[in-house]
Amino acid sequence: MTDKTKKPIWLDCDPGHDDALAIILAAYHPSLELIGISTVVGNQTLDRTTQNAYKVAYIAGLPSHIPIIRGCGESLCRHVTTCPEIHGQTGLGGADVPEHPEYKTLTKQQDENYLWNIYQKIISVGRPVTLIATGQLTNVALLLKVFPQIKDSLLEIVLMGGCIGIGNITPGSEFNIMNDPDAAHIVFTSPHVPRLVMVPLELTHTVCVTPEISERLRSLDSPFSSMLNHLLQFFVSTYKQVFQFDSPPLHDPCAIAYVADRDLFEEKVMHVDIERTSEFCQGRTVCDLYDMHRKEKNCVVAMKIKVEEFWNTMLNAIELADKNSPLNKTK
Amino acid sequence: MTDKTKKPIWLDCDPGHDDALAIILAAYHPSLELIGISTVVGNQTLDRTTQNAYKVAYIAGLPSHIPIIRGCGESLCRHVTTCPEIHGQTGLGGADVPEHPEYKTLTKQQDENYLWNIYQKIISVGRPVTLIATGQLTNVALLLKVFPQIKDSLLEIVLMGGCIGIGNITPGSEFNIMNDPDAAHIVFTSPHVPRLVMVPLELTHTVCVTPEISERLRSLDSPFSSMLNHLLQFFVSTYKQVFQFDSPPLHDPCAIAYVADRDLFEEKVMHVDIERTSEFCQGRTVCDLYDMHRKEKNCVVAMKIKVEEFWNTMLNAIELADKNSPLNKTK
Amino acid sequence: MTDKTKKPIWLDCDPGHDDALAIILAAYHPSLELIGISTVVGNQTLDRTTQNAYKVAYIAGLPSHIPIIRGCGESLCRHVTTCPEIHGQTGLGGADVPEHPEYKTLTKQQDENYLWNIYQKIISVGRPVTLIATGQLTNVALLLKVFPQIKDSLLEIVLMGGCIGIGNITPGSEFNIMNDPDAAHIVFTSPHVPRLVMVPLELTHTVCVTPEISERLRSLDSPFSSMLNHLLQFFVSTYKQVFQFDSPPLHDPCAIAYVADRDLFEEKVMHVDIERTSEFCQGRTVCDLYDMHRKEKNCVVAMKIKVEEFWNTMLNAIELADKNSPLNKTK
Amino acid sequence: MTDKTKKPIWLDCDPGHDDALAIILAAYHPSLELIGISTVVGNQTLDRTTQNAYKVAYIAGLPSHIPIIRGCGESLCRHVTTCPEIHGQTGLGGADVPEHPEYKTLTKQQDENYLWNIYQKIISVGRPVTLIATGQLTNVALLLKVFPQIKDSLLEIVLMGGCIGIGNITPGSEFNIMNDPDAAHIVFTSPHVPRLVMVPLELTHTVCVTPEISERLRSLDSPFSSMLNHLLQFFVSTYKQVFQFDSPPLHDPCAIAYVADRDLFEEKVMHVDIERTSEFCQGRTVCDLYDMHRKEKNCVVAMKIKVEEFWNTMLNAIELADKNSPLNKTK
Repeated sequence: MTDKTKKPIWLDCDPGHDDALAIILAAYHPSLELIGISTVVGNQTLDRTTQNAYKVAYIAGLPSHIPIIRGCGESLCRHVTTCPEIHGQTGLGGADVPEHPEYKTLTKQQDENYLWNIYQKIISVGRPVTLIATGQLTNVALLLKVFPQIKDSLLEIVLMGGCIGIGNITPGSEFNIMNDPDAAHIVFTSPHVPRLVMVPLELTHTVCVTPEISERLRSLDSPFSSMLNHLLQFFVSTYKQVFQFDSPPLHDPCAIAYVADRDLFEEKVMHVDIERTSEFCQGRTVCDLYDMHRKEKNCVVAMKIKVEEFWNTMLNAIELADKNSPLNKTK
Repeated sequence: MTDKTKKPIWLDCDPGHDDALAIILAAYHPSLELIGISTVVGNQTLDRTTQNAYKVAYIAGLPSHIPIIRGCGESLCRHVTTCPEIHGQTGLGGADVPEHPEYKTLTKQQDENYLWNIYQKIISVGRPVTLIATGQLTNVALLLKVFPQIKDSLLEIVLMGGCIGIGNITPGSEFNIMNDPDAAHIVFTSPHVPRLVMVPLELTHTVCVTPEISERLRSLDSPFSSMLNHLLQFFVSTYKQVFQFDSPPLHDPCAIAYVADRDLFEEKVMHVDIERTSEFCQGRTVCDLYDMHRKEKNCVVAMKIKVEEFWNTMLNAIELADKNSPLNKTK
Repeated sequence: MTDKTKKPIWLDCDPGHDDALAIILAAYHPSLELIGISTVVGNQTLDRTTQNAYKVAYIAGLPSHIPIIRGCGESLCRHVTTCPEIHGQTGLGGADVPEHPEYKTLTKQQDENYLWNIYQKIISVGRPVTLIATGQLTNVALLLKVFPQIKDSLLEIVLMGGCIGIGNITPGSEFNIMNDPDAAHIVFTSPHVPRLVMVPLELTHTVCVTPEISERLRSLDSPFSSMLNHLLQFFVSTYKQVFQFDSPPLHDPCAIAYVADRDLFEEKVMHVDIERTSEFCQGRTVCDLYDMHRKEKNCVVAMKIKVEEFWNTMLNAIELADKNSPLNKTK
Repeated sequence: MTDKTKKPIWLDCDPGHDDALAIILAAYHPSLELIGISTVVGNQTLDRTTQNAYKVAYIAGLPSHIPIIRGCGESLCRHVTTCPEIHGQTGLGGADVPEHPEYKTLTKQQDENYLWNIYQKIISVGRPVTLIATGQLTNVALLLKVFPQIKDSLLEIVLMGGCIGIGNITPGSEFNIMNDPDAAHIVFTSPHVPRLVMVPLELTHTVCVTPEISERLRSLDSPFSSMLNHLLQFFVSTYKQVFQFDSPPLHDPCAIAYVADRDLFEEKVMHVDIERTSEFCQGRTVCDLYDMHRKEKNCVVAMKIKVEEFWNTMLNAIELADKNSPLNKTK
């Protein structure tokens, strides 16, 4: 039933502004077939990130057959930290994004047995699925532990997270990994992952929402694109405030782009360890860039991206969503 | 459908010799209603512990409506260690225990979605269930993470494991906790556990399989009791070899006895932390016996047991099993 | 010049009530020759413990040729913790012990270059010296690092500290080790220590200042013995308050007694690791009692002491001090 | 007696190729007065680094009144690691540097009481001294612990070591810090350090021994410059082999240059923690570049250096040494 010329992907995310654009890219990139979406706590509470996934699916006109499954609301061994200082109290600060009209009906159908339901959707595709994670890795780690046989249905796991040098939540740790370092450890050491790709801060920090990009988005001149732009301007302002960045990095869609078009990327295979409990270094992805330890290489790290080509791809997807958006139709 | 005068219990275990006796006590103690059994890797591989659970259920004549569900075969964040030096290569060394006649039919019915199936059985009891864990806490931790709403169907969790002073697998760590310290951390810190009871080595080391106990068992003079006795003599010999103990401690049934008859026990409420990653202390249950840290008390630690009464209870259960055992009938 | 029939000892301490009795035992046991005393921060600040060492030397009538050297006032890598809740604000709570009349003259003569001066005194004895430490191990560790050649002048190091099971400052850590775990690590792993003996809490907790002992002390009926008794009663009361012990353990003199008369002791050689930084287990002496790790045995652990004989020895020393005490003479 | 227009400096080092050039810069920069040199284990054993310090002092024609004191040959809490793969078996691979003619006479005069002797030299200068450390921080940490009053005689401590992002001995750790993280912790947290400056890998990796630099050195055309050049070409070749660098970074002289001429540098004040024991991150200088933790800023981190001006300064110093070198005179 699925289009065999397209790569089937499952997206696990915690929307979040950049997750919103990741959903759009995942749904509208011509090389990808989005099988389903699961949510996890992270940028906001699980309630918020789930509601936001539905909202984005709605305003971006995603086909109704794509399931959205509410996943895990806790980290494995840590207290959860959310990120309102970047994403606002709703997780999608900057615009009053309308509720998905069937949110109350759809949600909770699949939620009690969520892990099984994600697993079932993935194995029923009939060919290896790429699992993309743009939030903390709790759902992914639980899938690997409870259903290790999922390996046979996975092509690879591609995650946005980690850093080689400097972190964004502690001096050495990136937010997604820091929020559940034990889940990250499970994913990075699992024998059930055929191939693991990490898209780290060093790469995503080169993909910035510059004024030029905002201008290109604004030129679509539609209710949908205008709402997206309001979301992004909120993101611009919080990143400016917290990190003094002139233009914020658009982290999560980079992971989607990697799956859609690997030619945009330079990559390097290396060993990566996860520091789980150190007082100062917890949540660090310890990347052995120079192979000092001669450990088995367990991770492909995306090192560089062709930024201009990425933005063309991203804006193409937004244009396709713009054509489908009920916001524009109801105008 | 269940007998409301009995306490409903679910037993998560890794048979193992002492687990075998725990199954018998759980099934035949007059105050308990055994709802089901799940298995976990530990004393032996998951294949072995599952097969052994079936074997024990068979030879002890357990009613066929009690499900045995194969659980998780990995630790959360560590490599698995099994314990053939104590339990032998089969996990039930010392006797050639016959296969459960329906083992191949029954197993795998519920195994792929095992976590959901355990959860469903527990919540369908209709009154709060006591979850007893006599192996590593992987299944229990996964249940709490994936189905936090299980809290409403739980009365308490009672586990055999941990120590206050000296360990049995490292200088400071007990085998069940050491095998999955991250799972233990989840269980000991979970807000979804109504009450947590730990039965540590200090207690179980007072419940020893002495020659007198063996003699009482032998006096039953039946194929079933003889097989049990062969199993225990193997356990006696390996404990002698590894720990220089004259009589080995019968760890796991103590946790069952706690649920069946708390009057046999002295207990103390305290704060217990789990050391997860330290090179020297990993897997330690850090018991704040003197409340030095004034942290919230999260655990009831069973401190003492009336040993003679315990053995009377245990041998009563064996006698009841002896009456039901197909080994004796087929003689 | 020294008496070759006696064992030469250097005492590093932090008086403290039990250190006071350790000084008396060290100075008056007929088998020992006390070469000198150094002080370290611990039970109180370095100012207090040094002043207290002088005070005790004075009231106990120690010969003036025994030097008292003020040592290190900091831990290597931790903030210092003192223990006023047991030893009071002066470190010798319970009596108004008079100042050493030459305190101001004597102190600071040797203090600026203290480590060298301790080293010089030890190597100039001309035969191997036993270094006894009854406080945190900072001075000892610095000696070993700065003057590794001290090995040739040492017979052994005997320390009061550590525990096999349960601690007295955290659930798993004893005060002296916890106060400077890095110094302890240096001492326990140093190739420059010919023999290392640890006298742990398990042993010292059997040597209690019972009412009978107090009565024997009181029967000396002198100003000196009366002052000692007031000190001990303060110690009795604080131990009661903090630990609910009816009779407090007299830790430090046990280490002196070990050197004076090893026949009073049972001991066991084992490997001991020091946990330096774990959140929950920092400061723990990880004693591999059952040789589980098959690591090289680096420590003799004193396991048992003949309590009655110890007290006879201790009270003999007090009687000898009583005869020398200027408190009694000036009466 | 010292020239008050010059900054008095003490150099603690472990020669090593780049240490050799640091000694030359320290001795010949017109703004600096080199008070003395101490050695520490590191690039090679303490025997080698001490011998090498003497050799460099000899061939570079250092005045004989500058003492060279042999310091500590161990790390505080770790086994020592040396670095023959970069510096060769002698620590000064690439040339047969002649022995200091008075090596045997001079050495050991001050060595037994080395810490006191370093301390005495520093406090006797009569104005605040800058302590520069280009090796592991063992000597410096011991000085601060044993003689905390040295604070009054120190202007600042400037060290070459650490990194903000990527390490050179493990993925996250620089060699000098990794070799004694506990000593580094003492230095970075000491209340007795008036000001602490760290010159990290990020800066030193911009100061490379390029072919142009080698050519400038060669143009001096003297036995001394030729010997220096042979040393540097060895360093070029080992760095190429181990790190695949075309031109090796000249780490240690950067710390000297910072003291001589701070105008060459950009710097940033921040909080730096030292990770002491984590399996994966041990030895890391955790630099809170973005002040995420709002901890007290304890370290000035040198961020950038004017590379061309540095080389002019360095080559000037080499020219001055060239005029003094006995190698040239004896020709």
